Amino acid sequence: MLDKVLKAGLLFDFYGALLTEKQQQCMEMHYSHDLSLSEIADEFGVSRQAVYDILKRAEQTLSEYEAKLKLVERHQREQHTIKQVYDSVDALPASLKTMPELQSVMKQLASIMKAREV
Amino acid sequence: MLDKVLKAGLLFDFYGALLTEKQQQCMEMHYSHDLSLSEIADEFGVSRQAVYDILKRAEQTLSEYEAKLKLVERHQREQHTIKQVYDSVDALPASLKTMPELQSVMKQLASIMKAREV
Repeated sequence: MLDKVLKAGLLFDFYGALLTEKQQQCMEMHYSHDLSLSEIADEFGVSRQAVYDILKRAEQTLSEYEAKLKLVERHQREQHTIKQVYDSVDALPASLKTMPELQSVMKQLASIMKAREV
Repeated sequence: MLDKVLKAGLLFDFYGALLTEKQQQCMEMHYSHDLSLSEIADEFGVSRQAVYDILKRAEQTLSEYEAKLKLVERHQREQHTIKQVYDSVDALPASLKTMPELQSVMKQLASIMKAREV
């Protein structure tokens, strides 16, 4: 379940702006604000099934964009390498790691790793 | 001109898969293989104006995706930070920089910087 939420969040982060406004609202309510389908349905005055269909369709659209563009996949590969770099610097002897230059390097790497956290 | 080519190349690298096949072919012939509009027109047996229109439309579509998603812009910000990190490590005293651990860090950073070069 967590994987599904993370994946949906990441896809939404990259391609969400290509969805319709209603799809974006439902995705945000469900995945960012953790509202249930029934709660979203109440909010919009529609059936739970209608919300389910909107979300299902939106997730399908996001997956189709990723299948074509693979930008999330590329991003995750880059993040993996940046994490490796961070870990390499972090594994240096304390006498080196505490040098201001390397502290600044670690701070910069951490900022890139955070930039896309879901 | 170089800027225009770089920008078109980067946008195509990110969103090219969303263009029609003909648009993709024209973009590749013009920007990757450096063919002139007339040469592409000859290849397809159409007018130079037709090729111009296809390219113009394709570039417009790519720009519209970027305006919505801003993934190239985000990528460039990340690349800028990675370059700064690389430069910080590169600026360390030679006695440190030649340590195998930091050599490996620089190699990893360079590989991320190259991954999207146009």
